[in-house]
Amino acid sequence: MSNTILLNNRPEGKPQESDFKFVEQEVGTPGENELLVEAKYVSVDPYLRGRMRDEKSYIPPFELHKPISSSIVAKVLESNNANFKEGDYVSGNMAWKKKQVITTDNLQKVDPDKAPLSAYLGILGLTGLTAYLGLNEIGKPKEGETLLVSGAAGAVGSVVGQLGKILGLKVVGIAGSDEKIELLTSKFGFDAGINYKTTDNMKEAIGKVCPDGVDVYFDNVGGEISDAVLFHINKFARIVICGAIAVYNKTDIPKGIAVQPFLVKKSALMQGFIVSNYADKFKEASQQLVKWLQEDKLHYEETIVEGFENIPQAFIDLFDGKNKGKMIVKL
Amino acid sequence: MSNTILLNNRPEGKPQESDFKFVEQEVGTPGENELLVEAKYVSVDPYLRGRMRDEKSYIPPFELHKPISSSIVAKVLESNNANFKEGDYVSGNMAWKKKQVITTDNLQKVDPDKAPLSAYLGILGLTGLTAYLGLNEIGKPKEGETLLVSGAAGAVGSVVGQLGKILGLKVVGIAGSDEKIELLTSKFGFDAGINYKTTDNMKEAIGKVCPDGVDVYFDNVGGEISDAVLFHINKFARIVICGAIAVYNKTDIPKGIAVQPFLVKKSALMQGFIVSNYADKFKEASQQLVKWLQEDKLHYEETIVEGFENIPQAFIDLFDGKNKGKMIVKL
Repeated sequence: MSNTILLNNRPEGKPQESDFKFVEQEVGTPGENELLVEAKYVSVDPYLRGRMRDEKSYIPPFELHKPISSSIVAKVLESNNANFKEGDYVSGNMAWKKKQVITTDNLQKVDPDKAPLSAYLGILGLTGLTAYLGLNEIGKPKEGETLLVSGAAGAVGSVVGQLGKILGLKVVGIAGSDEKIELLTSKFGFDAGINYKTTDNMKEAIGKVCPDGVDVYFDNVGGEISDAVLFHINKFARIVICGAIAVYNKTDIPKGIAVQPFLVKKSALMQGFIVSNYADKFKEASQQLVKWLQEDKLHYEETIVEGFENIPQAFIDLFDGKNKGKMIVKL
Repeated sequence: MSNTILLNNRPEGKPQESDFKFVEQEVGTPGENELLVEAKYVSVDPYLRGRMRDEKSYIPPFELHKPISSSIVAKVLESNNANFKEGDYVSGNMAWKKKQVITTDNLQKVDPDKAPLSAYLGILGLTGLTAYLGLNEIGKPKEGETLLVSGAAGAVGSVVGQLGKILGLKVVGIAGSDEKIELLTSKFGFDAGINYKTTDNMKEAIGKVCPDGVDVYFDNVGGEISDAVLFHINKFARIVICGAIAVYNKTDIPKGIAVQPFLVKKSALMQGFIVSNYADKFKEASQQLVKWLQEDKLHYEETIVEGFENIPQAFIDLFDGKNKGKMIVKL
């Protein structure tokens, strides 16, 4: 019976089921200070695609024929560490295994009474931190400004938009279905949304819903959508580059409109954001997110897929935009 | 006899002589607080190309059939303002006219005993301020880092490189002739130079001379050169977008490598720089530049063309890289 998922091939273009391999590996027993845990919720994220490439990046690539890993919430089955006891729940980066022995470094205890366990992979996990810190540290939003978010119905995007509203900005989201747009404006309180799949001229459409231009662009997608935004940035605009899902699967080097002339003309800033650079601000950000969540000022959407065997497909589905909000696999 | 140069056409692509028109206009007499001045040195700059387009930018476009203007050093012939007297020299934005009546707003008195008059259009003018403030405010150079400068033999680029050396960085310049490269490494103290016109593979060439990667890229050119730099930026790199001369003359929207994936991967920053946004720092920057100039720590190169009638051609020659350092027309 398979209990582990390995990286079988480095994907060419869009990942496929055959890039993954299910195998049976021995679980082992916990040594000193270690835990035996059982995975309960597994996060699948677009950034994992980058780690499947054999190239230097901000985190090392996955090794071929070794287990893939991502953020996971797991239940402690056995503990040799005084700070954790059987029955506790923990979150952290773990292998795609049903059960595993882990060290407790970089592990957080999570409380199922404060929020559903899956929330610790989303709005209370790296997703929420990414939204909060990317928006505040690079976007520097000011009341009354216009915030445009791409991938707006995604896990990060939907939180970014809500934070923008809490801070008093006009918030517009770009997403890929009418259902998602409806979700943005109803559940998440965005002021307007643009369905890029049914819009012929994105440049024109953005101009219409952002008549005062765009002050902060929170970019989760890259590609042609982001090219269209350039025509509408205001003087001193801040562009947070949080992801580029539109180009993650490209095998050649993606091209686009040269951004430099736009940035000069508008004295604008564009900066790549990686949440791990801001670890010193995690605590403060988490506290703020929990507070707003408990005050019902933040909402979130999850797409929960069931079954260990469906982890690869859930990951692949990200690139077809099949998720609304955070994509999670429940075991 | 012609004494004024008008914008005759908005250039398509590279400007041509026929885009300019020489006419005779009445000079007039100075009113209250005004001066009658005679142009002595006229600055021609790549950014003027942008003002020849009929589009909103950080400064309004030139009007068709009206005089073009740029930075000029002029001699006061008549003064109705107590702060200026006949024989004084002033610098500021003035029309391309041999003589003109001007108000004294935004005019600086310049001292021919402290530095040659032409220097006030270059290293002690907006050129020097652009280099100093662009490098410091966005580039945030740190001792021991690697600074790469494109358009390095140009007016701004040559100052940027020298400032980098004063601040203890490794400095590499990209320019378009062996003569310019020689100038960079001899006169301006750059550590190395790359002649992009004789280099087939810029990506490889940059990797060779910047084995530790690029921490600060001061970009005066845009286009393919800047695309090649992306492959070598370090984590937390800062890219100062100061100009994009490679694309100023393009009539369609220029394309290039999508920068977003590089910026994410390296948590890098790219920001458009316009010197006028930093007017509150001009005084401090000027004092520092004068000091280093007097201490012989800064050197500059000028290409001085003679004759009012040669102003348009001098401007056009910028786009063929015919200048070394600041391009100036002496009247």
